[in-house]
Amino acid sequence: MQSQKLFVEVTRNNTVESRHFGAAVVCDYKGTVVESWGDIDQLIFPRSALKPMLAIHLVESGASLHYDLNDAELSLACSSHQGEQIHQDLVESWLKRLGLTVDYLACGAVLPECSERTHQLLASGQQGCRIHHNCSGKHTGFLTSALHLKLPLEGYHALEHPLQKSSLAILSDLAQIDLMQYPMGIDGCGLPAPTMPLIQLGLATARFANPVDLSELRRKAIYRLHKAITNEPLYIAGHGSVVSELNEVTKGSVLAKTGAEGVIIAALPEKGLGVAVKIADGGSRARSVALLAILDHLGALSAKEKQKLHDYITPAITNSRGFAVGEIRAASSWL
Amino acid sequence: MQSQKLFVEVTRNNTVESRHFGAAVVCDYKGTVVESWGDIDQLIFPRSALKPMLAIHLVESGASLHYDLNDAELSLACSSHQGEQIHQDLVESWLKRLGLTVDYLACGAVLPECSERTHQLLASGQQGCRIHHNCSGKHTGFLTSALHLKLPLEGYHALEHPLQKSSLAILSDLAQIDLMQYPMGIDGCGLPAPTMPLIQLGLATARFANPVDLSELRRKAIYRLHKAITNEPLYIAGHGSVVSELNEVTKGSVLAKTGAEGVIIAALPEKGLGVAVKIADGGSRARSVALLAILDHLGALSAKEKQKLHDYITPAITNSRGFAVGEIRAASSWL
Repeated sequence: MQSQKLFVEVTRNNTVESRHFGAAVVCDYKGTVVESWGDIDQLIFPRSALKPMLAIHLVESGASLHYDLNDAELSLACSSHQGEQIHQDLVESWLKRLGLTVDYLACGAVLPECSERTHQLLASGQQGCRIHHNCSGKHTGFLTSALHLKLPLEGYHALEHPLQKSSLAILSDLAQIDLMQYPMGIDGCGLPAPTMPLIQLGLATARFANPVDLSELRRKAIYRLHKAITNEPLYIAGHGSVVSELNEVTKGSVLAKTGAEGVIIAALPEKGLGVAVKIADGGSRARSVALLAILDHLGALSAKEKQKLHDYITPAITNSRGFAVGEIRAASSWL
Repeated sequence: MQSQKLFVEVTRNNTVESRHFGAAVVCDYKGTVVESWGDIDQLIFPRSALKPMLAIHLVESGASLHYDLNDAELSLACSSHQGEQIHQDLVESWLKRLGLTVDYLACGAVLPECSERTHQLLASGQQGCRIHHNCSGKHTGFLTSALHLKLPLEGYHALEHPLQKSSLAILSDLAQIDLMQYPMGIDGCGLPAPTMPLIQLGLATARFANPVDLSELRRKAIYRLHKAITNEPLYIAGHGSVVSELNEVTKGSVLAKTGAEGVIIAALPEKGLGVAVKIADGGSRARSVALLAILDHLGALSAKEKQKLHDYITPAITNSRGFAVGEIRAASSWL
């Protein structure tokens, strides 16, 4: 097997029931590996962890300024949102301002990831639509850029479209590799899903955290996104999500973003560090527990912040009768 | 890390995105390890994989005969059902015949695992109830035994209750260890959740497959359950589930049962073998892919059966736009 480290244990009455393995890297913005666990050269699909970096184009193209996007809209452009009412409302009003409808979104119709909202919708006789897709903010961002740059709206999600080419070029700049030379998949929402070695995701995240070595235009765009995410953390994920909570509690000193299949990153602007985690099995319950353990290890969380984030650091497992029967915790052996 | 083997790969456009590790054992009913992968001495929680064995008590106590339980009800007693209408109807009519109501069930109220049924319920203004819990058939079985044996109904789910003691004694007989000497947790439905080494789960499954070495009463009870599950495979899980499909397609030559957190077993009555699989990370998508690969390796599936089970052997991953973007497959290296 590849070199994977035991990151997270799931217990039942203090006996370990399940184990999550993975790899992780902490890079600084100059490209130095500060710390690593497991095989960081392994090829991974960063998936939605790339969204804040994909939103750079929206700002540096001038589209954001032209359409006067506010912090909430820019945070939503970086988001995997939960499809709550606040997310739905903002995508709807943003699309309306663009003169577009939901039919322009290339992502598929789904029910919201927020189960409470899903239940509300179904109970009121409604179904999920494209706006409820966790990527609809990102897609609305791409449509905004396409309109501003007078590019075709049709096929904006395809690898051959200029928007995707520009976005992949920005990602390549951040990761300092040519992503077109690496395997490419298709994401859940239809967009290209690039791959890169895990170490490159750590580097890209560090350069997003401290973009001092990037062009001025790109640097300014990234600072604009930092501000937007910090000011509107609920729009990058949603209520009760670890990403929104972490970004809110740390007031922007940690900017985290999840990706499907067990990926999570954290940009630490003040430290100029990027953290990238891949849980081998793709389990979402393990990625944030591993990330929070690494952030604690790096001294990136104060005692007060850790107290506020306690339910995410060691989530309890409750059964159908409402009793706590176990917990999810960082394994003791790897830090 | 413990000795875990790479069992299952999840791909995206033919590049591996995620990896599931685990351990598995094939035992015969005499206790010989026929084949194994990974650490089979590791302690695991078999969870719902034990349900068919927990139902032995229902038959050998005479409760099943007294209440004239049919094949569907006995299959349901062994089930992790999906909460479909057929499951709900049968639990309701069974409870009614016992003179009991849903309030006697110790499991908590939940929405069905079958999302179609969940959507139906919510759209018609209903909520999930205790009957929709995947364990409600097992619980109704316990209530049936308690009534027949004139044991208290209250607390029937507690470790101290005579029913649970008898059931754990039966499990101990099958696994040939004293389960009371091993760590014990609480299950999602409130019942005791015993642990055992993985090899013991393989052995217990093999002795369930061919119970010739057990007492006559126990042997007859197990054969009765084989017949019930074989005749009513939809009641042990549900439509579109790998367990029901596998049990149906093989006409009882494979009797499979899942357990939470990545566990799956298969009893092979004709071969007198038991297979037990634990996916380390608890991922449910990997357990059946690993089991089907082992069954194929053992020659337990005909070409025709494999054809019918193709969608479970290598499940496709489709995105929100309905396109196949990847697959879940057994890793090539371990068999």
